[in-house]
This record gives sequence, C-alpha cells and structure tokens, in this order.
Amino acid sequence: METATTRAIEELREALGERLATGEAVREHHAGDESWHERQAPAAVVFAESAEDVAAAVAICAKHHVPMIPFGTGTGLEGGTVGRDGAVSIDVSRMDAIVSVNAEDMDCVVQPGVTRGQLNRYLRDTGLFFPVDPGADASLGGMAATRASGTNAVRYGTMRENVLSLKVVTPDGRLVTTGQRARKSAAGYDLTRLFVGSEGTLGIIVELTVRLHGRPEAISAARVCFDNVSGAVDAVILTIQSGIPIARMELIDAEQMRAINAYSKTDYPEQVTLFLEFHGSEASVREQAECVGEICDSLGGSGFQWTAFEEERSRMWEARHHAAYAAMAVRPGARAYATDVCVPISRLAECIRETRADVHAHTQIPTFLLGHVGDGNFHYVFLVDPEDPEELDQVHGLSGRMVERALAMGGTCTGEHGIGLGKQAYLQRELGPDAVDLMRTLKGALDPGNLMNPGKLLPD
Amino acid sequence: METATTRAIEELREALGERLATGEAVREHHAGDESWHERQAPAAVVFAESAEDVAAAVAICAKHHVPMIPFGTGTGLEGGTVGRDGAVSIDVSRMDAIVSVNAEDMDCVVQPGVTRGQLNRYLRDTGLFFPVDPGADASLGGMAATRASGTNAVRYGTMRENVLSLKVVTPDGRLVTTGQRARKSAAGYDLTRLFVGSEGTLGIIVELTVRLHGRPEAISAARVCFDNVSGAVDAVILTIQSGIPIARMELIDAEQMRAINAYSKTDYPEQVTLFLEFHGSEASVREQAECVGEICDSLGGSGFQWTAFEEERSRMWEARHHAAYAAMAVRPGARAYATDVCVPISRLAECIRETRADVHAHTQIPTFLLGHVGDGNFHYVFLVDPEDPEELDQVHGLSGRMVERALAMGGTCTGEHGIGLGKQAYLQRELGPDAVDLMRTLKGALDPGNLMNPGKLLPD
Repeated sequence: METATTRAIEELREALGERLATGEAVREHHAGDESWHERQAPAAVVFAESAEDVAAAVAICAKHHVPMIPFGTGTGLEGGTVGRDGAVSIDVSRMDAIVSVNAEDMDCVVQPGVTRGQLNRYLRDTGLFFPVDPGADASLGGMAATRASGTNAVRYGTMRENVLSLKVVTPDGRLVTTGQRARKSAAGYDLTRLFVGSEGTLGIIVELTVRLHGRPEAISAARVCFDNVSGAVDAVILTIQSGIPIARMELIDAEQMRAINAYSKTDYPEQVTLFLEFHGSEASVREQAECVGEICDSLGGSGFQWTAFEEERSRMWEARHHAAYAAMAVRPGARAYATDVCVPISRLAECIRETRADVHAHTQIPTFLLGHVGDGNFHYVFLVDPEDPEELDQVHGLSGRMVERALAMGGTCTGEHGIGLGKQAYLQRELGPDAVDLMRTLKGALDPGNLMNPGKLLPD
Repeated sequence: METATTRAIEELREALGERLATGEAVREHHAGDESWHERQAPAAVVFAESAEDVAAAVAICAKHHVPMIPFGTGTGLEGGTVGRDGAVSIDVSRMDAIVSVNAEDMDCVVQPGVTRGQLNRYLRDTGLFFPVDPGADASLGGMAATRASGTNAVRYGTMRENVLSLKVVTPDGRLVTTGQRARKSAAGYDLTRLFVGSEGTLGIIVELTVRLHGRPEAISAARVCFDNVSGAVDAVILTIQSGIPIARMELIDAEQMRAINAYSKTDYPEQVTLFLEFHGSEASVREQAECVGEICDSLGGSGFQWTAFEEERSRMWEARHHAAYAAMAVRPGARAYATDVCVPISRLAECIRETRADVHAHTQIPTFLLGHVGDGNFHYVFLVDPEDPEELDQVHGLSGRMVERALAMGGTCTGEHGIGLGKQAYLQRELGPDAVDLMRTLKGALDPGNLMNPGKLLPD
C-alpha cells in the first residue's frame, strides 16, 4: 500500500500542484471528526477546487488502488472522516460557491463546501431560507452524505427531503447527475436518495440542488420548564398528535441548561426545558402558541414564555446550537461521546425514561440529554476521560443499551449522526443480515475495489 | 424458455395449488395495464396470499430462470405490468390485509394489495388519512413501485415521502426489511427509497409501513374559472410562491371539463378551471381561501366559489378522479394515451403554453389537459384510434416533444407515471448515459439474471 500511495501522491502533485498537501498539520487536521473515535491521519490531502479536481483525484487514486476519504468541515459525530494508513483525504471545503439561487422555484444549486450558515447568510434578502441545521456549521456536502437533520426537521424534513438532485463523482471517476430540478419525478431509480446518507462510501458529492423554504410571515419562539422529563415529553407527543405544524421542538435537560447558561452567558432556569418555535401567518403563530401553551400547562409545564422578538429568539437558538460545545466546556480535557437514537413518538417518553434511569445508575461522569423530540429523536452526550478505560466502558455499555432499547421499540440506531465507525454493529441488529447483505451488494457493485471511504458504514 | 416455464409452472402448482392459474381469461387480465402499450399475456398467474407465497414463487421462477412480473390492480399508465412470453405474473391483490394502524404514531402497516380507497375507508373513524391519490384506486404496493403521487402531493408529498419502510422479496427469494418505524433515520443506505419507484425491477413489495396524516380540523374547497390556461397557471405559481400551504391545486382545461360534465352528470362551467382545496384550522382555511381568491381575481379568475360542505367537495373530487374515464367516454373504442411531465414551477406556464400550441397545430383527435399544477406536474391525455398508425404517430411526436420541452426547462420526463415501457428513451436524455449506466449496475447487482420485470424501466 505504501508504494501505491507514494506513486499516487506523485501523480496527484503533477495533476493538482499546490492543491495537494502532505504537511503534518494538514494531515492531522484531516485525521478525524468531532467524535470520540480514534483519529488517524491520511497520507495526503487534496484540496479540490472543482468537480474536475475531484474527478482527477479519484481517477488517480482508483488507478493506484489508494483509499479515498471525502472531507467537508470534519464536524461529524461517528468517525465518518477518520483517516487510514496510506489513504488520501479529498477535502471539498474550497468548493464553496453558491452557483445559483432560483427564488421563483425555491431551490438553489451549491458546491459541497458551502456551509448551512453561509447559505443562509447569502439568502438573507431573498425571503427564503434553508432549514436543515445540525449543531455544527457543517458543509452541505457532508450534511447530504450523512443524511443530516436538526431542529427544523419536524416541520421541514431532513436532507432526505431537502435534496432535489446531486452531482457525484463515482469511484471510477465519472460524474453522475442524479436528478433534475422538478419537485417530483418518477424517472428511474432514486439515485439522489441512494447517495444521501451513503457517508461518502459510494462517491463524492460535488454539487447539490436543494430546496429552499419561504421565510414565514411571522415567527415566534417559546420556552417552557418542567419538573421532570416525562411531562415535557408528553407535551411533545400531544402537540405532534394534535397536528399542530410546529417548526421546532427541542428538549434540554437540567444539566444541559446549566452548561448552556455557563457557556452562553444566559440565565435560563436550570430545569428540564422545551425550546419551541412557531412559523406561519401572524394569526396562525398566535393560535399555535396558544394551543401548545395549553398543552404544556395541562402537563405541568411552568413559565411558558413566548416572544416574537428576533433578537431574543436568535440568542435562544444560538445557545441551543452551541449546546454540544457548552457541554464540553463542563469538563475540560474530556472527550464528548455523543450518541443518538430515534423512536416512534408513542415510545419516546418510555425510551427516555429508561435511558435516564440507566445512565444515572451506571455512571458518575457528566451527561447531557437533548433532542429533536418532535421527531422522536434524542441524544445523550457523555464527557469521557479518554485515558480512563473504565469510563469508556461504562459509556459504551450505556450507548449500546440505549440503541437496543430504541430498536426494541421499533426505532433506529441513529436518527441523524449516521453509522460511520460507531454504529456498524447495530445496523444488522436493526435491519437484519439480508438488508446489510443488500447494502454490501450495492457497495460492491458501485465500488468493487472498496476504495471510497472504506470501513465506514459497512465493516471492511 | 418454453420448457423452463413449463417446468416452473409444474413446481408452482405443486407449491401453491389453486393459487396458480393458467386459464386464458386470467392470463389476458394480466397482459397489461390501462395504457396504450401493447398487451401481452404471461404464461401463468400466481395469486399470492402471503409473503411466503411470493418468496416461494420467486424462488421457483429464479431456479428455472423464468421472468416474473409483479401485478397489483393493473392500473398503471406506462406498461409496467405488460406480460411477456413465458413469464409468470405474480399478483398480490389478495394480500389486502391492513396489518396494524398505529394512530399515536400516525403510521400503519399494510399488505401490498390494499388499495388507497380501502385504506381510507378503514381509517374513517380514526381522524387520520392516507393522502397519496393517483387517479385509479391503485394498490399501495403498485403505488410505491411507481413512486405514485396525485392531487395532495403539493402538501403531503408523494410515495417517496410517505413510505416509512418496506418488506421486499428480492430476486433471489430473500425477504428484506428496508427500515424501521422511526420518522427519520441515518442508518445506512436508503433501501426504502431504492425500492420506491423501482417499478418491480428490483424485487416485489410484500408489506409497507406508510405515514398517515391527521384529518384537518377544517377543509374547504374552491373552484375558479379562467379565460385561458395562462391566467390559471400564473395563479398557481403565485400561490405556491406565496407559501400558502394549499392542499390541492388542480388544473383542468375546457375540453376535460366538458367530458367531466358529461360523465359525472355535473354542470360546471366548461372553461379552464382550477379545483382547489384548503386544509387547516377554521381560521387558517378561511385565511388561505381569501388569499388565493385575491390572487385568482387579480389574474382574471372568475366565479371563485368556495364551499366547506363535504358533499359538494366529495362530488367535485370524485369528478376529478374520474377525469381519465370521463375523457375515454368521449370517443368510444379509442385508447387513452396519457403522458405526464413535471417542470420547475417557474417554467410551468411556458411549458403548458407551448405544449398546447403544439397539440392544437398537429392533431384533430380529442385531447385533454389536466395536472397537479402545484407541483409543476401536468398530463395530456390523447384519445387515439389504435388501428390508425397516423394518429399514433402524431401522438408519439407530441408526447416526445412535450418531454423534450420539459427536459430543456430543467424538468423530468415523468412526474408520476413512471418509465415503464414508454419513457425509456427519455431517461438517458434526462440524466445522461452515466446515470443510466449506474442504474444498470444496480439492476445487474440485485437481479443478475434479469428476471424481475425485465425490460421495464431499463431496456432489456
């Protein structure tokens, strides 16, 4: 492998010049993501500036049988960008052009390195926005690759629903277009959805056409506290079942609220809290807030406070988006071990209740519960001392039991973080060996040399 | 092939007894669909009563290398169920059980032979409904296989968005589960979306978990006439761009309105018409209807009439759903040649205008325009004398130019009817040879013997 990589690097340098980097700092930066997974540096990094660069790099790597690892912002949570010996990281962060905005059709075409924040700043004056918002300011290419989601998914869907079409460089170096700009199509296999969520194992996304949404006429946000998680979750379930078109519905436990206050200099009550947001016409927003306020009241919610002021709303959601960083600040030097599951909403209260009991019974380290509970999706973040194998064992056990619990309730082992390195054992538990075999058949057909992000999503 | 089929039929009879039929009438019933495509009877028909029956039939056919053609209600429009020499049709219409309804999670599990009408009658008292409604009372298995859509898709999505999970018998006779009941998942390749729209070429759907939606608190419908198609289409575009969450938005031309009146004994004005429907709270429905009424007024709409009466609404939508049959009644003995395209909404007026001009310039036969225009999707129905090659040539030319026009505008060659036999030539024009090659790779990997609905979607 070593020599193949050396030859590939020579050819890459000839083809790409200074867009090929082998310095230690750069390689180390591309060694992993924000997860607990062990980092490993690639042998070289290609900073692609165009689809042609990506295609050229893929063709050279394929010719020399060198593994490739697509890289965006490196903010993944399941080790999807962890390097490997002799591999080449293909970084698309310089491909950050917004190619076109079709305001009339409410869609836009972007390069894969465009981040969600960048896109929304660009759209500010158009009356449109892009709703998918994982915690990090991730790249859209990476978000599509992991089928990312976030706080707005309950109303606007995930990357699955918001990607209209992709351009992808396949493992043999070809550039494939997966769809057109029409809102719906019955034309052939759904190649778009095949690549959304494929975690860079079937090809490298070099362009996306995504749906945009009209900025609502009115937005209001609300915050409501509960004595315990069960009351909050029951309020979520009842809201969803009532068909209220709520835009955001976030659960945060007392520990996480304390961390947020410390990190974001806020003074929210340090109790179990729901952060809510309503989108619609003035009248509809008021009506929604009233309905949800009544639901919360009836289930023991207190201090339901709503605001239409943009500044206050922004502060609240910024604090929410920084929750993971806030958690990390609680125990300097610790590593954040984040895990996520998603269950049918009818089982959410039970799943959270049992998981909390398990967590409290089995570890003393700082833990944080938060979730996009309107979807039935929640996360636990554990702050682990990376040098302490006992802590890591505790957390592996808790995370594993959390997944088993979700699966037993008809849920999934990951709502939005992806399989990466961390959830491979559970994929088969979730869908059975025949489904995983089928995935392996797809991978084998599209990437017979197993060169495209090998060892991620499916075991080597 | 003949002998292989004979041997397979013997084994099928042993395994399935009277669930295997070879009578001429049954075979003829399974020779095709409701399209203009030439019918061809299969050699035998399996009436599967369980997933096990399907798996057994597939295993026997695979062993003898006999082609299989999945069959639901036979109401497709692109020849997806047309038989072939020596093939076995696998009919799932007897698998019509509603396995479970999870009202709290707003989903349900059904066998593939359940029709949309049957499911909604069953759900009547639950406060829930299933929104996807192609013209025919199709089976849900067939609807998933063709990625079907209908009048509600503008608000509730197509089968792509409304299927949560599938059980599929793959060409090697294995039973694969594609997902769980969670609303979202980032667990592995999106096998669900791989089978949705695969037109029976990758496997046979034997169970579906689909999303249900809450029956809105209030529903009102409206009808508005226009002097010409352009005004109506502009009203649609402005409504969508205003972000009004309209539930249905159907365009019907004067010819089609005339046919509807004759067939459904209604007395609607015989003009270009929009049928509209609004879902929401009482207040929101009123607000939506007012906004759309103003938009229509400003663009030359006349006689905007809205009604909250269920009986009147039902009559209107029943008439709309019977539009294709109404059209056919205009020219007894003729065959309906239906074609559909979908374009970005900003190009919809232009696409319809140019297509109408082309139609009026090149044929004298009865033609009907109707469409789910809120999605940018419209249909032309041509009543062709099947014995007259000149008429058929005219229509092939018109249909082909309609597709080329849609593709040039960033649209798709089919919004909801599928590729089947009729649109294969356009798939490559739409996505390019590399995308079609990729589809062929997928087909080859999952069905190496090319036995599962061969010759559909992709050329043999």
